[in-house]
This record gives sequence, structure tokens and C-alpha cells, in this order.
Amino acid sequence: MTSLKYPSLILDETIAKNNIKKMATKASKLGVKFRPHFKTHQSLEIGNWFRGYPLDGITVSSLKMAQFFAKNGWKSITIAFPVNILQLEEIDKLASEIDLRVLVVDEETVKQLDKKLTSNLNVYIEIDPGYGRSGISYSDPGNIQRLVSVINSSYKLTLSGLYSHAGHSYRSRSVKDIRQLSSSVIEKLSQLKTQFEIPVCFGDTPSCSVLDDFGLIDEISPGNFVFYDWIQTKIGSCTPKDIAVAMKCTVVAKYSSRHELLIHGGAVHFSKDADITKDGESYFGQVVKNRSNYWEDPIEGCYLKSISQEHGIVKCTENFFYEISIGDAITILPIHSCLTADLMGSYYTTTGRKISHLSEKII
Amino acid sequence: MTSLKYPSLILDETIAKNNIKKMATKASKLGVKFRPHFKTHQSLEIGNWFRGYPLDGITVSSLKMAQFFAKNGWKSITIAFPVNILQLEEIDKLASEIDLRVLVVDEETVKQLDKKLTSNLNVYIEIDPGYGRSGISYSDPGNIQRLVSVINSSYKLTLSGLYSHAGHSYRSRSVKDIRQLSSSVIEKLSQLKTQFEIPVCFGDTPSCSVLDDFGLIDEISPGNFVFYDWIQTKIGSCTPKDIAVAMKCTVVAKYSSRHELLIHGGAVHFSKDADITKDGESYFGQVVKNRSNYWEDPIEGCYLKSISQEHGIVKCTENFFYEISIGDAITILPIHSCLTADLMGSYYTTTGRKISHLSEKII
Repeated sequence: MTSLKYPSLILDETIAKNNIKKMATKASKLGVKFRPHFKTHQSLEIGNWFRGYPLDGITVSSLKMAQFFAKNGWKSITIAFPVNILQLEEIDKLASEIDLRVLVVDEETVKQLDKKLTSNLNVYIEIDPGYGRSGISYSDPGNIQRLVSVINSSYKLTLSGLYSHAGHSYRSRSVKDIRQLSSSVIEKLSQLKTQFEIPVCFGDTPSCSVLDDFGLIDEISPGNFVFYDWIQTKIGSCTPKDIAVAMKCTVVAKYSSRHELLIHGGAVHFSKDADITKDGESYFGQVVKNRSNYWEDPIEGCYLKSISQEHGIVKCTENFFYEISIGDAITILPIHSCLTADLMGSYYTTTGRKISHLSEKII
Repeated sequence: MTSLKYPSLILDETIAKNNIKKMATKASKLGVKFRPHFKTHQSLEIGNWFRGYPLDGITVSSLKMAQFFAKNGWKSITIAFPVNILQLEEIDKLASEIDLRVLVVDEETVKQLDKKLTSNLNVYIEIDPGYGRSGISYSDPGNIQRLVSVINSSYKLTLSGLYSHAGHSYRSRSVKDIRQLSSSVIEKLSQLKTQFEIPVCFGDTPSCSVLDDFGLIDEISPGNFVFYDWIQTKIGSCTPKDIAVAMKCTVVAKYSSRHELLIHGGAVHFSKDADITKDGESYFGQVVKNRSNYWEDPIEGCYLKSISQEHGIVKCTENFFYEISIGDAITILPIHSCLTADLMGSYYTTTGRKISHLSEKII
């Protein structure tokens, strides 16, 4: 497998397909529409693995991603990002071709859309459920009301509903934490749904993974669940056996005095997204056992301790250190699979087949 | 300029060319060979800006990068990374075409190279000058001696010298800190040079930027200096006026209650490399004043406070917050230009001309 010559992102198709099946089945069972976020995998082929399940459409995080999936036949796409008015021309064109939905958060942008668009466009009002990143605060119904009115008075804009990302669920460290947070978010969104009589979409991976009741929520749009990653096991969303992607990197040197390995695999492969050890130090990936083609259990005490551009230093237990030789490939679960996949630009399945990503490089 | 529709990495050619000129002139003046590291810019065009200065060759951090620049006519290239024996076939081919130099850190790899190569290959022994990342410790001359002997007894390998990266200079926070650290590294390397009677190459950007005497060092290979970045101003290597690249990102929402802006620009653009505020919080970029086409001074109190995949939150002073409108592009100096450039995959000059990067994407 040529992939071992270079740092490679290995994808276990069976696990990913199972993750998709579980989430799609849950959505059906709990009676919510399923509009999965494709920003994690950004792959046409992996996108196609969702076909066959009842989908309401898909979700992406940029115009470029929407154009990419629209070309592949996806007919209903939400760009889960407040609209950038400078992209109006491209949005207008795409809205003439598919059921395009964008997020809006202010009156001025809505008025400009109404004035300049030639196509009809569907918009969600983004609601900040206390995460503090983006959207009108859930506790500001006056502002939401004003935006609803401006949208409703436009001939070109159609209000699809309220969209909300509870990104603060990522601060959870147990299933109980997630449930507590997401229940409170659902309660807030349900109040707004009742008040404004419009559908509500929400869907961070932690909440969608652990909830078994979405209350009044109409649709969900989780993304990371397709692969999960090491941080999701810490949050409480999944177990290591649910993680569908892992990096394989070659050991190029061993340092016996410190039980550390130097691997070819750095910040341009893993990303610098980090988890924190018990001692408060950042680390960038969790070593798992190699199997013939993919991975088994996490090895406690073996982790990607530091990374620079192309170099990675793996801290080892003494046992693991002496099991490994220079030239061996070791397997590391990424902290944050979305960023690792975006950097790697392609996947290799466990049988060595290459799968493309939107970020695939020319060379 | 189309680049404003999307997050864009703006390159000020004049500043970059001046940085190149300064470093090349310093190397000549101080009598060291200049073998600049191209991992920061990874661009054929920017590489060409170095031609015309007396170069001993160039330095890169991966085989792929070496192949990329070799195709563009570079005839002497150091891959400043311990050789990965699984890439032997490609290394052998490239070594038959150019003066290729690789790093070695252990006897076993050297023996395998000697056994399997068909071409002649130049090798440096990598020395760890106390950084703790890669190389044989400078304080282990016995190990260095053994490696020198094995290399010297090979017909296919030629010893180019000792190679050393003092990456711990990045922990400096003043010119004085850098000088102190690099003087001690140069002293160690000089002892080894005398003992083994071979050339010594070193060259982190902080040391090369502030030193005005390289002692017994034979060649330098700094890379980041071509652009510098915000962290280099903190380390003490440069001033903000020396920084040649900045991100331009569009403001898509304003939050008056917290004086924060939402921009399109996140971890897939900036990278998650961070600096730390006075309050101990991570941040991901420094806002500077917009000028007609590029940037002026850093604005204290305005910085990229948090990033997720595509979202960035900019913390503002009250004044700056009210100067900015939705749709405006703001300019942000990256924390670490190498990683930002690698993610962005291309540059736009201040006049809007696109310059390619090795990581340029297909779409």
C-alpha cells in the first residue's frame, strides 16, 4: 500500500457506514428530518453513502462546499453560515438551480438580499443558544421578531425556520453533561418555535448522538458523527470503536532516553487542534494498536505529544516503545477528524482504495 | 478583487523580497553559505525570488517538496527531515538527478541506504542541540562518531556535515533571549565541528534574524523569515512591518453586546496555532489596520479570539467595532505563517495577482 510511504488518513468504511445508518435510523425513529452536515467528510463518495436513507437535504459550511455537492446532484443544501453579501452573485446563481438555504442574522443583509437577488432564496434565522459564536441570542425575541417580519415582507426570501448550533456541547465531558446542556437548548428552541410558529433545526454531534428524544425539534444536522474522533470520546458522544478515521504515520527515529518516537506526521497533517492531558499539557492524537489493516484499542500512555510542520513526537510507554521499529507505521486517532480530513485532502480505505475530499491537492 | 469574496492570504511582495535580500546579504557578509528553507512559502514563484543571490542550494521538509522544487530546476536540495526508509525508491531516483541531501540519525537506516541505493546520496547527521525533537544529542559524541564511521565506510553515502535546528529559540521572548540561546547552540556545534572536522549547518529564523556573528557555522537554512508572522514579533525576530503575509476575511455579523465580529475565516484557513494573551487565553491572529490594499499597524485589543472550522470571532475595542460594517474585509496577521500558507494553498499579491503554493487545491 503506497499510503504507508507518506502520512495517510485511513478510513474504515464499515464503521462510517454504520455511523450513518445509526444516525439516519435514529432520526426516522424519533420523527425528525435528517439534513446531515457534510463539512466533516467533504467527499462526494462518502456523501453518496447517505443516499437511500430518508434525507431532507444536506448541510455544508461554505458556498464552495455547496457548489461542490450541488454539482454532484444534491438538490437541497443548507449553508450553515451567515450569508456573506459579497458572494451574492454566486448564491443567486446556485439558488436558481437548487433548493439553497442560507443563514441570516441581521436586517441589513436581509434587505440587501431582497433588493439584489433575482432568484428565490430560502433562509433560516440563526439563533445563538448560549454558545456565543454566531446568531441572534435566543433570549432576544424582539430582534428575532423584527427579522421574521422583514423576511416575511420579502417576495424573494422564504423563511425555512430557525437554525441553531449548540457548539457548547463540546465542553461536555460525559453523557450526562451533554443531556443536560442539550435539553436546556431544546427547551429554549421549543419556546421560540411555539412563539414564532416556525420549524427549528439543530444538530451538534454530541447532542444528536446521545439524545433519545428531540422534543419539538423539526430537523437535525449533525456532521462529525460520520467519523467521530478522539475528542468525541472525551465529550461522551461515542466510544473509540465508533471512530472511523485514523492517521497512519511512519516512525523515522527512536529516542530511548525519553521513550519517544519521531514520526512523519505534523501540523500540516493532524492540525493543531488539541486535547489536554491529566497534567494539563496539550496533545494532538491518541495512539491505538495496529491490526493488519486498521486499528484496535487506544494504548494508554501513548499519544502524539508535540507537532511542528512535518514532525510529530509520540510519547510511549516503555513496552510500546520497544515493540516498535524504525520504518513501522503507527496508527493515531485524530483529536478532531474534520480538520485532519481537511488537511489530508483524501482518504485511503482499509483496503487501500483512495477516496477524494474537496480539499484534494493538485500535486 | 475576487479574493475578498473568500478568506484570502495577501502577500506583500515588497516586504517578502526585502526579507530575502536582507537575509541573503547577511549570509554573504558574515561568510556563511545560504541554503534557505522553502517550507514556509512552498511556492515556485517565491522560490525564484531567491535566484540571483548566492545560494548554496535550498532546504525543504519533505520528499514531496524536494520533488516539487527539483522539477523547477533547483539542483541542490536538503530534505531537513530524518530519512524515511520506505521512500527509498523515490529518494534514489531524485538522488540520480540532483545533489540531494537527507538527514540521518541512526546506524540501521544508514546501513539500509548503503545496501539498497543505486545512486550516490549526500547525508547530514542531524544533531539535537537541546531542542528535544529530532537528532542525536549534541552531548553524545560517541554516537555521532559511530554514525560518522558507518557513513564514511559507505561507497554510496557522502557526509555533507552536521545539521541542527535550534527550535527552542521559538520559546524566546526577546532579542536577548534569542542571542543567549543561539550563542550556546553555536558553541556546542562549534565543538562538534572541531572534533569531527566537518561542516555544520544550522538555521532557525529567530537565530538567523538577530545574530551578527555565526562563529564557526558553515551554512544557515532559515525559512520563516521570508514572511515572518505575529509570533515572530513576540519572539523578538522581527517587527510587525517585516511581516509579508496577512489574511483578509469578510465580516459577516456584528455582536454589539460583546464587541465581537464574526468573520468567514476559521481553522481551515488560519490553522489552530495560537499565541497566548496576557490573561492566559489562546488567540489565533492579530488584527491590523486596513490600508487601500494591505496593512498597517497592529490594533491593540483587536484579535482573533476563537476559531472553529469556518467561523472566526474577532474581539474588538469599542472604537474599532463601530468603525467596521458587515461586508467589510478586515486584515489579520497569522500567528504562524507557514501553517496558514499551507492551508490557504495560494497567495494574492497586494495588486490581486495569484501566486501558487504546493498545497494548491484542485477545486
